[in-house]
Amino acid sequence: MQQRISLASDYMEGAHPKIMERLMKTNLEKTGGYGYDPYSLQAKEKIRVACGCPDAEIQFLVGGTQTNATVISALLRSYQGVIAPDTGHISQHEAGAVELGGHKILTLPHRQGKISADDIDRFVNDFYADGNHDHIVFPGMVYLSQPTEYGSIYSKAELTAVHEVCRRHSLLLYIDGARLAYSLASPENDVGLKDLAKFCDAFYIGGTKCGALFGEAVVVPDPELIPHFFTVIKQHGALMAKGRVAGIQFDTLFTDDLYLNVGRHALEAAAYLKAGLHQRQIPFFFEPPTNQLFVILPDKTISELSDHVEFCFWEKHGNGHSVVRLATSWATTREEIDQFLGFL
Amino acid sequence: MQQRISLASDYMEGAHPKIMERLMKTNLEKTGGYGYDPYSLQAKEKIRVACGCPDAEIQFLVGGTQTNATVISALLRSYQGVIAPDTGHISQHEAGAVELGGHKILTLPHRQGKISADDIDRFVNDFYADGNHDHIVFPGMVYLSQPTEYGSIYSKAELTAVHEVCRRHSLLLYIDGARLAYSLASPENDVGLKDLAKFCDAFYIGGTKCGALFGEAVVVPDPELIPHFFTVIKQHGALMAKGRVAGIQFDTLFTDDLYLNVGRHALEAAAYLKAGLHQRQIPFFFEPPTNQLFVILPDKTISELSDHVEFCFWEKHGNGHSVVRLATSWATTREEIDQFLGFL
Amino acid sequence: MQQRISLASDYMEGAHPKIMERLMKTNLEKTGGYGYDPYSLQAKEKIRVACGCPDAEIQFLVGGTQTNATVISALLRSYQGVIAPDTGHISQHEAGAVELGGHKILTLPHRQGKISADDIDRFVNDFYADGNHDHIVFPGMVYLSQPTEYGSIYSKAELTAVHEVCRRHSLLLYIDGARLAYSLASPENDVGLKDLAKFCDAFYIGGTKCGALFGEAVVVPDPELIPHFFTVIKQHGALMAKGRVAGIQFDTLFTDDLYLNVGRHALEAAAYLKAGLHQRQIPFFFEPPTNQLFVILPDKTISELSDHVEFCFWEKHGNGHSVVRLATSWATTREEIDQFLGFL
Amino acid sequence: MQQRISLASDYMEGAHPKIMERLMKTNLEKTGGYGYDPYSLQAKEKIRVACGCPDAEIQFLVGGTQTNATVISALLRSYQGVIAPDTGHISQHEAGAVELGGHKILTLPHRQGKISADDIDRFVNDFYADGNHDHIVFPGMVYLSQPTEYGSIYSKAELTAVHEVCRRHSLLLYIDGARLAYSLASPENDVGLKDLAKFCDAFYIGGTKCGALFGEAVVVPDPELIPHFFTVIKQHGALMAKGRVAGIQFDTLFTDDLYLNVGRHALEAAAYLKAGLHQRQIPFFFEPPTNQLFVILPDKTISELSDHVEFCFWEKHGNGHSVVRLATSWATTREEIDQFLGFL
Repeated sequence: MQQRISLASDYMEGAHPKIMERLMKTNLEKTGGYGYDPYSLQAKEKIRVACGCPDAEIQFLVGGTQTNATVISALLRSYQGVIAPDTGHISQHEAGAVELGGHKILTLPHRQGKISADDIDRFVNDFYADGNHDHIVFPGMVYLSQPTEYGSIYSKAELTAVHEVCRRHSLLLYIDGARLAYSLASPENDVGLKDLAKFCDAFYIGGTKCGALFGEAVVVPDPELIPHFFTVIKQHGALMAKGRVAGIQFDTLFTDDLYLNVGRHALEAAAYLKAGLHQRQIPFFFEPPTNQLFVILPDKTISELSDHVEFCFWEKHGNGHSVVRLATSWATTREEIDQFLGFL
Repeated sequence: MQQRISLASDYMEGAHPKIMERLMKTNLEKTGGYGYDPYSLQAKEKIRVACGCPDAEIQFLVGGTQTNATVISALLRSYQGVIAPDTGHISQHEAGAVELGGHKILTLPHRQGKISADDIDRFVNDFYADGNHDHIVFPGMVYLSQPTEYGSIYSKAELTAVHEVCRRHSLLLYIDGARLAYSLASPENDVGLKDLAKFCDAFYIGGTKCGALFGEAVVVPDPELIPHFFTVIKQHGALMAKGRVAGIQFDTLFTDDLYLNVGRHALEAAAYLKAGLHQRQIPFFFEPPTNQLFVILPDKTISELSDHVEFCFWEKHGNGHSVVRLATSWATTREEIDQFLGFL
Repeated sequence: MQQRISLASDYMEGAHPKIMERLMKTNLEKTGGYGYDPYSLQAKEKIRVACGCPDAEIQFLVGGTQTNATVISALLRSYQGVIAPDTGHISQHEAGAVELGGHKILTLPHRQGKISADDIDRFVNDFYADGNHDHIVFPGMVYLSQPTEYGSIYSKAELTAVHEVCRRHSLLLYIDGARLAYSLASPENDVGLKDLAKFCDAFYIGGTKCGALFGEAVVVPDPELIPHFFTVIKQHGALMAKGRVAGIQFDTLFTDDLYLNVGRHALEAAAYLKAGLHQRQIPFFFEPPTNQLFVILPDKTISELSDHVEFCFWEKHGNGHSVVRLATSWATTREEIDQFLGFL
Repeated sequence: MQQRISLASDYMEGAHPKIMERLMKTNLEKTGGYGYDPYSLQAKEKIRVACGCPDAEIQFLVGGTQTNATVISALLRSYQGVIAPDTGHISQHEAGAVELGGHKILTLPHRQGKISADDIDRFVNDFYADGNHDHIVFPGMVYLSQPTEYGSIYSKAELTAVHEVCRRHSLLLYIDGARLAYSLASPENDVGLKDLAKFCDAFYIGGTKCGALFGEAVVVPDPELIPHFFTVIKQHGALMAKGRVAGIQFDTLFTDDLYLNVGRHALEAAAYLKAGLHQRQIPFFFEPPTNQLFVILPDKTISELSDHVEFCFWEKHGNGHSVVRLATSWATTREEIDQFLGFL
């Protein structure tokens, strides 16, 4: 199949070659199902070590929407909703999966994909100040993404503040790490896996958008927080019979720093792309420190580029211009980028 | 890793080597997500041809519980429940996924995993004869498995009768084909894919237990039956970002009769195993025409065997004996079976 | 309106005259909504005293199905189901309200409407003995009715045993008291409100079928068991704006023993009816110690009676006979019963 | 009980005396349950005539939140959400009842409680213009209130436009008439019951806030729109055993124009109150044409008034002032208003 250049997203290829190799090598082995195979157990142990929480419950689910819906359902009581940025993945692009589970999303206006501890504090204070709040959905948890849907990242100071406001208001904190490899690898980042494990009641380490065929690793530092999480996962249709297929992938991603390297490769490609765009004086709509870049192009250019390159339309910018998103992955090559820049 | 012999189930290995080969070969290609890649489109077309229904909606989901919960939810109105054998997978082993979706399972007593058209007819007639039936869950659809959880299969005559009783009572008919390859390949079977497409409002062709890493192909012969099925799947967390990983697998399974061959290999292994068991005069609890065998063994033998072989405990049989299930797969070898028989 | 005699059920009239009088007298007063009016507060306090649990949370809901669905939802985690007799109201006549809330009903075969501590113990032991129980709905609570749908009552010894088996297996115990007045007033009964408060994690004192226009009083002896129950009730659409309409009714029912007297009147009427039936040698299908009687009549007699009397068809008994249910209420008169017996 | 003056809301009293009288008069009659009694049937017929839709399905539910949740659930498919003003009752004050039913509320910014046909049109066009809308909750219906939570009313021209935009985009239109008596009686109103029946796929005529003890009459002009609505209502715990208690109330409200008269009385009281406020030059925040007035008072005045009068705090207005809502009902007297004005 002939290929167009694609900067459309970070899940356009199969899996990192090391993962494929490992799946091939183990293919004929017979193992138990549902995550009790040795590879899954080993992968979980490696993740526990990486997160510095030896008792954590780790479970591998298939995709992001599924993971968000399952974890949020497992953590909330029926009368509680989840606070999220209005640009959060759960707020926008999950087809109502959280609501299907019975919960309202309490959206706050974002700034480059983020909300602050102060935003949350104000919202919760206003809620409790309302004399009729018993007739209203209670805020029960906070949902953030690291990096966000805009590629921005929370600093350790910001997350510390969010964590504290959550503790103060008895809110659980859950972080969607669909693209976590790209924040972990970012030079601007100071939030490691151990920090996430300290700040969050639950978070997930994204595989699908970070080099795996599929798979997200949920980390629940205090395993008693979600009793019978295994059964909850099964009930949500999120339990894989051949659990090892996720286990082997995460075992590989957490061997020899592959997860970080997947992120690093993409960020190097993003840096190279960024340099080329700057050189060509392409204006940026937003220039985040991870693997997504947002540039402003004339609609005419966009239309011509579309014949050669795949990318993601973001929004109208007015005056015959639009914002497009360019994303790099572990598989993006300098050649591709050069070709793309050549078209500009 | 050293291996014990396993006759525990048909999902103990990875995927059929042809599938792995194909995944490797296509790994670096960049394609669109969510099932719009060429492999998925091509696989859907092959399945439409195999089922003789050119307009069918085909969607690839990840696992059986997820597929059942999503399809049943999509087909029922809130006041309706689903008729199923009390041994049906949804009745027993899905952790309440159908009820989580809001629907009651109306169980009927099984015979070797099956229920008959007459059973259904009687149940529905009794329902409508009850003067208070407006206070009761309405029967809205019928769920069957082909082959059943006991390995038995419905004949074409039986399914025709079920189909007719469904039409008469405005019930939808849905068939769970988690192990469909094994009925399709059975010498005793007279129900092909085209028959299923004719009888059912929806059914799925199982991948996970029939040679794939994971994946189930839902077939909805009349695509207007489930509007916006894509969004429904997304909402249930069942949509894969890298949809091609399922698409490539089904494309391979529906190339050169691989799906049938997976079934045939397992049935040949089952026949060889059956012959060996008969020779040793091991009594059968139930001897179905597919890839599962149910034999009665002394508990002492079972305990000794467990050191060498994996198999599935089924139920107590009394008098110091129990029933165990032995299952073969595309990967079961004569050597394994010989070894197993040697232990008896 | 000309009246036929009715022994159809105990909710065929309006409310006990004392309740109507009280509603009239207070009608023009202005009070706060949602159960914060003085009548509701006072009624709650009287119920707390009657139940001997000074801290109990008391809430007034409108009807039985609503109450069952709301309380069961509030008490269960998503992966849990509720054990109930197969004849339980939730199992049979609530149109799937419990399943709409996401929970499976785990039915056990009844004996005259009841299940025993041993039945429950066996079921739960079997569940945990199943190696795959993580794939199955967990038993989370037990639902019983006092009196049952067959008019039978649990003795204190039986409830003590159920209570103990629940504690042993970490099951919550919930009792549906839709017709509680009739067991409380029964000479054979040894289970008082204080016993219920001791045995149960939650129960409700039925109003609709015991002399009120509508209304059920939920008692949760430990108020911390259901956090924000008020909001949960609101969310289930079960919170009345004019909460006082329920409050005034329960305040009246718990003044001067009216609730008990409602029960006593019905039981005296039932005794009178029973004597008349025995005198006429009408065979009983089941003769429970509360306000429902089950007699066997020739179908021809049933058909003739229907012109003059309303009653409830129960089931076919074979041989041209059927079982009918006769129910008395606070409003049943000796004249009505005499008339009815005259028709036989 | 000593009474403070209350202008807090329109549901602070019991029921209109004519309703109480009727309940008393019929109290000892025995009738069938669940809305099949002659009073309910008669009330439904009167409502059909008043709405000019002889085939309409009419059902009496208990309260507003319950009605909204039940009707919205019955009308939407799982992948659809409901468009509503951000000030809509379902958006703000129903504790997540719509989300508990699985549906997202798609809020649009309000103007005095209203949204326009253009607002809806723009939202839906934007939705379908989004290339990824298959990943997003579909707009399936529009929810409005008449009058709105701000007391404003939609004109016939406005509703005609909304109706047309709904038809064009295949959206259902549902109107919450919790306070419908007050718009029907407003001199500025040109939307009658027959118009509502023409514009809406479903709406409800509010009883609780318009003179009844409780009760809302749902009108579904095309009875085939919601199959088995009776069972849906039962499943939502919204079916009353003694259905007649609602039936008698609505029968009375729809006899001799009582429903309109309830509204007229409240509007006359509101006009009298408005005149008095104008005379005292109290500034209005918003002065709608129905039974709710919004005035701006110094916080000090508010605090002093609170000792004598009940009213509803609305929001801070800044500069030591706040907005309060004053509401009149069928029971508000000139004496009360005079007393209240005297305190100012």
